[in-house]
Amino acid sequence: MSAAERFIHEAMEVIIDEAVKKATDVQEKVCEWQSPEKLRELLDLELKDGGESDSKILQHCKNAIRYSVKTSHPRFFNQLFAGLEPYSMVASFITEAVKTSLYTYEVAPVFTLMEDAVLKKMMELIGWDEGGDGIFNPGGSMSNMYAVNLARYRFCPDIKEVGLYNAPRLVMFTSQEGHYSISKAAALLGLGTKNVYASILPPADMLLSLSILVQGAVPFFVNATAGTTVFGAFDPVDEIADICERHSLWLHVDACWGGAALVSNQHKHLLKGIHRADSVAWNPHKMLMACLQCSAFLIKDKTSLLQRCHSAKASYLFQQDKFYDVSYDTGDKSVQCSRKPDAFKFWLMWKALGSSELERRVDRALAMARYLAQTFKKREGFHLLMEVAPVIKERMMKTGSMMIGYQTHGDKPNFFRMVVINPQVSKQDLDFVLDEIHSLGKDLR
Amino acid sequence: MSAAERFIHEAMEVIIDEAVKKATDVQEKVCEWQSPEKLRELLDLELKDGGESDSKILQHCKNAIRYSVKTSHPRFFNQLFAGLEPYSMVASFITEAVKTSLYTYEVAPVFTLMEDAVLKKMMELIGWDEGGDGIFNPGGSMSNMYAVNLARYRFCPDIKEVGLYNAPRLVMFTSQEGHYSISKAAALLGLGTKNVYASILPPADMLLSLSILVQGAVPFFVNATAGTTVFGAFDPVDEIADICERHSLWLHVDACWGGAALVSNQHKHLLKGIHRADSVAWNPHKMLMACLQCSAFLIKDKTSLLQRCHSAKASYLFQQDKFYDVSYDTGDKSVQCSRKPDAFKFWLMWKALGSSELERRVDRALAMARYLAQTFKKREGFHLLMEVAPVIKERMMKTGSMMIGYQTHGDKPNFFRMVVINPQVSKQDLDFVLDEIHSLGKDLR
Repeated sequence: MSAAERFIHEAMEVIIDEAVKKATDVQEKVCEWQSPEKLRELLDLELKDGGESDSKILQHCKNAIRYSVKTSHPRFFNQLFAGLEPYSMVASFITEAVKTSLYTYEVAPVFTLMEDAVLKKMMELIGWDEGGDGIFNPGGSMSNMYAVNLARYRFCPDIKEVGLYNAPRLVMFTSQEGHYSISKAAALLGLGTKNVYASILPPADMLLSLSILVQGAVPFFVNATAGTTVFGAFDPVDEIADICERHSLWLHVDACWGGAALVSNQHKHLLKGIHRADSVAWNPHKMLMACLQCSAFLIKDKTSLLQRCHSAKASYLFQQDKFYDVSYDTGDKSVQCSRKPDAFKFWLMWKALGSSELERRVDRALAMARYLAQTFKKREGFHLLMEVAPVIKERMMKTGSMMIGYQTHGDKPNFFRMVVINPQVSKQDLDFVLDEIHSLGKDLR
Repeated sequence: MSAAERFIHEAMEVIIDEAVKKATDVQEKVCEWQSPEKLRELLDLELKDGGESDSKILQHCKNAIRYSVKTSHPRFFNQLFAGLEPYSMVASFITEAVKTSLYTYEVAPVFTLMEDAVLKKMMELIGWDEGGDGIFNPGGSMSNMYAVNLARYRFCPDIKEVGLYNAPRLVMFTSQEGHYSISKAAALLGLGTKNVYASILPPADMLLSLSILVQGAVPFFVNATAGTTVFGAFDPVDEIADICERHSLWLHVDACWGGAALVSNQHKHLLKGIHRADSVAWNPHKMLMACLQCSAFLIKDKTSLLQRCHSAKASYLFQQDKFYDVSYDTGDKSVQCSRKPDAFKFWLMWKALGSSELERRVDRALAMARYLAQTFKKREGFHLLMEVAPVIKERMMKTGSMMIGYQTHGDKPNFFRMVVINPQVSKQDLDFVLDEIHSLGKDLR
């Protein structure tokens, strides 16, 4: 192993220098843009019959980091994740090195218990005083999909066996600004995207809207959003819960983005009523900065609905004659087989920082966003939504000075969506963003 | 960042000492068994308001590794993955540190191209001379699920929009020894587990079996298995392809385990006919030893079926007015949103080892398995399938000497399933396995 150890040591130095130090240095570029054609040449992608020397492989590692986007850079605002969290990064290295899968306690004892501990703590913050159940998934889209499937299973467990053949037309409601994964779930689950009704939640008269929209159809699921993808807006969960209770609809809250506010005493009111949800999706890899991916799916049910809905009882994994309590084997709660121990990435950083520091970070990010909004209002040339965003974006990428996403919305033309997460972000960085947009776009008016 | 850097450095030393050196040392235990109750105490799981010092966090890291199973140990035969592949491990560290997601070229330029390069090379080995399409998924179960969904979409694209409401009863065929994820997919996709027919493939008279089994129903999908989970058996893909072509059924080959034989000139005949499949699932994280997870899903179609089937066209990610060729944005091919760049874990090791070393490893693992089978036949006390496996397993775990999975099958009582992957495994290790089973179980006869 000594050659391998030497290689690992050298590679670690590269990772620390290039992907940790340099990537977080505000003096460095956010990205070193290359066209696909050019980058293909630079990377020497071809896989050959013979192998390459360790020094060449280290050069490939350097190139991979160099031409990757520095999502930890203080001027990366392009996604709903950002920043480098060293504790979480170390935890993710450990999960890679330990190389295990979360199906049975036997093969992942530590991570099984850590997942359980993290889920319990998250349920506490949601306000489920009597606990519940949950699982970490590869992304929030999967969690939203799980919610739809569980709702359908609770509504009619037979569908698992007999399918939707001869079933009534099942329909779902989601927030007008809800994430597209609800629609993807409807497609995948055989429910159909046309049976997803996107509306402002709750509608002025939900009863009326139910009868008008879905004549002859059976509603079973409502997705409310706590922190929408584009505007970061929060649906009034409490009011929606009233309606769901009245009509026995499953209430899911997609809090992938906004769940972070639950750690803040100042901001948790945004999710008022979330304890009444049947299920919650919450991604610590977004505002709480755990490494990718770290996505929790939580349900209030304590009758093993998750397991009953998804189980297939594979005899080679989930033997019932084991010498330990097999309720610790969580694999059959998942539609995956092999599943990564993502909870550890959140557990270790939570342990290191404590809830109080998580709270400070969320409060700081929201204060920074407020600062930007206020400063923005005072700036000339920023009030118009003109068709310049794609051009400014191109210039921004080619300069490598910062990264911000843009999009259209409704009748509005393209605009920039600012996402503030990273505690390294200073007021100076935000001022820079406005200066840079101004400077990149000033000839376009 | 300097405190963070120091912490990362120290943690890396811990990882190399504990999770690399010690974990692969045959003198060390495979696992240090603790009951869930005891382990809970040892790990100090509670998450508190205040944070903990770096030295305490390092201790948590050590504990996490210490009490985790050493899946890289030469005597770990418990799963369809094993062994430590240093190049792949370094690649996985890089993907964690670089922290990005594979939805757009813009945010993951390097990994987009690497995924493309790896998929193309895998397609070459499958024998799709004109290419195809594909994507890396979080596990083979997801890939099998994708296959079912694509088959359904090709059969009737309207189902994406209108759902299965009013659709005929759609049925699927799978190998008798096929993986349980096909059944999970049927449940999740609203097709129903009862509409999955498991049989020896191809059946003596498929036409007859079609008409008998599925009266009034519409078959659309066949899953053949190349390397079954329990016996490692291969379905005759060529013969099955004949029938699928005749009846216009989508042919999927679950080669998650057996796909590795495609890199071996000596063994690739096991998958004869795989080039005729519509889709293939193949996990390099199994016999080829890439780090978890590394699971490819490949399809022969070149008309963007994958994208059309799964797309939701989110305006904040998949803008069509970008300054580069948006066919490099692969995110809408997935039902996930955020997706890990898993292909890099395979690309870097392939680059370092070359195809020839991959081939040698597969040939060696199969030779070792043959050695075990031959030695086994000569040993006394091993021919009976007695109900001792769960007891021997318990003793094995508590001793920590090795790990092998057990299970029942059909009428057969519990037996041990040996999985040989790791190139560190020697004939001595295999002899040890037989000695140890004998010694742990000798009082049970």
